[in-house]
Amino acid sequence: MKLYETLAAELAQSIQDGVLRMGDRLPSVRQASTSRAVSPSTVFQAYYLLEARGLIRARERSGYYVAGAAQKLPPEPEQASQPDEASSPVDISERVFEVLESAKMRDLVPFGSAFPSPLLFPMARLARAMASSVQQLDPWSAVDDLTPGNPQLRRQIALRYLADGLHIHSDEIVITNGALDALNLCLGAVTRPGDAVLVESPTFYAALQALERNSLHAIEVPTHPREGIDLAALARAIERHQPKACWLMSTFQNPLGSLMPDEKKRDLVKLLTQHEIPLIEDDVYGELYFGDKRPMPAKAYDSKGLVMHCSSFSKCLAPGYRVGWAAPGRFTRAVARHKLTTTLAASAPAQAALATYLEKGGYDKHLRQLRHTLSVQQTLFMEAIARYFPPGTQATRPKGGYFLWLELPAEVNALELHRQALALGISIAPGPIFSAHHGFTNCIRLNYGHAWDERSETALATLGALVQKMV
Amino acid sequence: MKLYETLAAELAQSIQDGVLRMGDRLPSVRQASTSRAVSPSTVFQAYYLLEARGLIRARERSGYYVAGAAQKLPPEPEQASQPDEASSPVDISERVFEVLESAKMRDLVPFGSAFPSPLLFPMARLARAMASSVQQLDPWSAVDDLTPGNPQLRRQIALRYLADGLHIHSDEIVITNGALDALNLCLGAVTRPGDAVLVESPTFYAALQALERNSLHAIEVPTHPREGIDLAALARAIERHQPKACWLMSTFQNPLGSLMPDEKKRDLVKLLTQHEIPLIEDDVYGELYFGDKRPMPAKAYDSKGLVMHCSSFSKCLAPGYRVGWAAPGRFTRAVARHKLTTTLAASAPAQAALATYLEKGGYDKHLRQLRHTLSVQQTLFMEAIARYFPPGTQATRPKGGYFLWLELPAEVNALELHRQALALGISIAPGPIFSAHHGFTNCIRLNYGHAWDERSETALATLGALVQKMV
Repeated sequence: MKLYETLAAELAQSIQDGVLRMGDRLPSVRQASTSRAVSPSTVFQAYYLLEARGLIRARERSGYYVAGAAQKLPPEPEQASQPDEASSPVDISERVFEVLESAKMRDLVPFGSAFPSPLLFPMARLARAMASSVQQLDPWSAVDDLTPGNPQLRRQIALRYLADGLHIHSDEIVITNGALDALNLCLGAVTRPGDAVLVESPTFYAALQALERNSLHAIEVPTHPREGIDLAALARAIERHQPKACWLMSTFQNPLGSLMPDEKKRDLVKLLTQHEIPLIEDDVYGELYFGDKRPMPAKAYDSKGLVMHCSSFSKCLAPGYRVGWAAPGRFTRAVARHKLTTTLAASAPAQAALATYLEKGGYDKHLRQLRHTLSVQQTLFMEAIARYFPPGTQATRPKGGYFLWLELPAEVNALELHRQALALGISIAPGPIFSAHHGFTNCIRLNYGHAWDERSETALATLGALVQKMV
Repeated sequence: MKLYETLAAELAQSIQDGVLRMGDRLPSVRQASTSRAVSPSTVFQAYYLLEARGLIRARERSGYYVAGAAQKLPPEPEQASQPDEASSPVDISERVFEVLESAKMRDLVPFGSAFPSPLLFPMARLARAMASSVQQLDPWSAVDDLTPGNPQLRRQIALRYLADGLHIHSDEIVITNGALDALNLCLGAVTRPGDAVLVESPTFYAALQALERNSLHAIEVPTHPREGIDLAALARAIERHQPKACWLMSTFQNPLGSLMPDEKKRDLVKLLTQHEIPLIEDDVYGELYFGDKRPMPAKAYDSKGLVMHCSSFSKCLAPGYRVGWAAPGRFTRAVARHKLTTTLAASAPAQAALATYLEKGGYDKHLRQLRHTLSVQQTLFMEAIARYFPPGTQATRPKGGYFLWLELPAEVNALELHRQALALGISIAPGPIFSAHHGFTNCIRLNYGHAWDERSETALATLGALVQKMV
C-alpha cells in the first residue's frame, strides 16, 4: 500500500468511526502535510482518493469537507426488469427522434445528453496531434489505408488491449466511424431481415433503432440495475426464440450503469457459445471506471471468436472525430467487407491524429483525471437527488460512466416529465425510449458528465419539484 | 474569343490542314511569343488548350509536338448493352472483393484503381486548412454539430450548387462519410428488403453490393457507352417490375464514362417522376469535365424533390477525409435520421478543414488544373491503346472523369486477363464485376488518373500483348 493510500485509509476509518462527521472540515493540505510529516502531494492524492470514493467533498476555495453518509443517498433499485419476453418487431425510432431532436438545443441543461461535456477532453493536445500528423500524412495512405484502417492506430489499440490482458492482434481490429458504426456493422455481419436479437431491458435506444432499420425482432431480457442481464432469463429466451445475435453492454450499461461481475460475464460467454450465438459487446464506457482497474469486457472470456467487441474514442477522448473500432473475432473479415461497402473507411486525418496522440502518451493521465471528475460529479448529483426528489425515488449507483437511472414513484409519467422539463430549459432522457415495448414509463436517465454548478443544482431542484407534483 | 483561344484556333487549323503534321515539333514558347508578338503566357495557354484537346503533346524537356490524329485512336463502342432484363437478387459481392483485394498492393500499376493519383490533390494546402481549423474548433461542435453536419461546410456546398445554377438550400444537405455513405443512406431511406431497384448496365459494383447487402433485386437497364441509360428500356422495366428506386450516374458514369445529354436527363427525371420513383444520382465525377462547363446533374430538372443528389470531395480534393453529402430532396429528413442511427455523423475536423479550404478559395483553380491533367492523360492513354492493343479493341472516349471502358475482342476473358496482368504487376478492373449477371466478360475498365510515364506505357504494352495472345 502506498503512503497516500495508507493516509486515505486512516482518514476513511476516522469517518466511519464518527471521529470525523458529515460537514466537518478536513485539515488543510499544509496542516496535514506538517502534522503527518508527509509531502503535500501525498496529502493531495489521499484527498483525491477519498473524494473519488465519495467520502469527502471539495468546496471551492474553502478546502475539503466530509461528505454526506450513505443514508443521504437515494436508495438503489433492487429488482431486475420484467419485460414482455416475446420476440417482436421494433417500432420506436420515431419516438426516439422526437425526444432527441427536441433536446438538441445547446442552451438546455443537458441531463438528457448522451455525451459528457466536451470541456473534459484534451482538445488542445488533440488539435496539436492533428496538426502535426496531417502535415506528415502520406498522400497514398488516403487511397491505400482504407478499411481495416490506419495501421499505427490499430497497433495502439492492440497495445491497450494487451495492457488490459487481452490478446487481440491488430489484424483483428477494424477501424470504424465511432462505436455506433462498429455495432451496426457487426449486427449486419451476423443477421438477416426477420432474425431475432437478444437485448437488455432497458437497452440503449440506438440498438433498438438498428434492429428496426434492419427489420430484426427484439427479444428484451430482464436486466438487473446493478449486475446486468439475467442469465437464467437469457437461457430461456435462447430456447424459445433461436436468436441470431445478442447485443449488450456488460460494463456500465446505458442507461442503467450496471456492471456484470467477472464471473457472470464468463458465464454469459459460455452460454452464448454453447448455442453458437455471436455477442455484440458495446464497451464504450469501459474506460470510465471509478474503481482500481478496468473491468474486463466479456470479450476476455471468448475462446471461440464469437464475441465482437466494439468501442470508440468518442466518450473518453475525441467525440467529434468519429473514430471507433470493432474486434469482431471470427467475423473480422465480414465486418471489414461490410465497412467497405457502406462507408468505405473512417476519416484518415482523424485516425492519424489519434494514433499520434496515443503514441505520445498522456491518454492514461487524461483518463485518470476524467474518471476522478466523473466520480465526484456522480456523488454531487446523487446527494442533490436525495435533497430534491420525493421519497420513493430510487437511483442506480454505477461504478463508472456518466449516467444515472432513476426509478421514480409509479405515478410519474416520464414522457410528460420530459415535456415539462423541456419547457423549463432542462433535457432528460425518458425511460420509454429505452424499450421496444415502451415500458419504463416512470424512469429517467440523467447525465452527470457536465460540470456541477449552481445551474445543475437549480435544474435538479426544478426537476425534483416537477416529479413531486406528479406524485 | 480571347487572344490565346485565337492563337489555339489558328494552330488547330494548321494541324487540320496538314501544314503541321503528326510528330512535327511546334515552335518553342519564346519563338512563338516573338514571332506572333504575344506574351509567352498567351502561347502557354494556347498550347495547354491544344494539349487538353489532344491535338498536341508535351515531351519532357523537348517542347510540344503534334499528336496523333483522330484515326489513331481506338474506335468507340456504339452499341448499348443488352442485359438480361429480369429482376434478380444480387450475388456478386464475393467476386468483387476477390478482385479488389487482389489489386490492393501499392506497387502494382494501378489501372484497376477506383481513385485518381493522390498526388494530384493539394494535400499541403488541405493540411494547413486542417491545422488552422482544428485549433479553432468549438469543443461543443463535437457534440452539437452532428448530422446534418458542419453548417459552414453545408453553406459552401450550397454556394457551389448555386454557382452551377441549382437552388439547394443548405438545410437540404446532409454531410456523410463520403458519397458511398450518402448513396447507401438514400437507398435505405426509400427501399425495404425484397424491393427492386433500377441500375445501369454495366454499373458501379458498389451499387450492386449495396443491393445485395440490403436484400434488394437489381434490374439492369441497357445503357449506351456514350449517352447513358436507355430511356425506352427504362420505361419498359418500370412497367414490368414496379421498382422502388433508380440508382445511376448521369455524368461520367462508372465504368463507361457516358454522359447523358441535358435533354435526356430532363426526360429521365420526367419519366421517373411520372411513376413517383426516387432517383439516387451518384455525381462524384461531375466536377471532372473536360469541356467548357460543368454538366448539369439530373437533379437540375427535379421539381418534385424526388432526385437524391449524392457527391463528395473524395475524387476531386480529399480522398482520405471521407466527406461527402446528399441533397435528398423530400427525403432529407429520412436520410438524416438514417445517418444518425448508423454512423451518427461525419468526422468534425475533416468537415471543418474542408469548410475552411473552400472559404479561402482556390478549389476552382485546383479543379481546372486537375481537369487539364486528366484530359491530357486520357489522350496519352488512348494513343497507347491504339498502339498496343489488337484490332477489334474499342474504347469509350469520356468527356470527363478518369476511366476508360474497353470492349476487347469477344474471345478475350477479362477475369483471366485480370489474373495474368496481376501476375505481371498490373491491376485492371474486369467487366464482370460491373454486372449482377456477370456479363461484360470481354470488357475492362482502365484508370488513367495516374501520372503517364514509362511505367504506364510499358504496362499498357504488356496488357496489349496479353490481349493479343487471347485473340
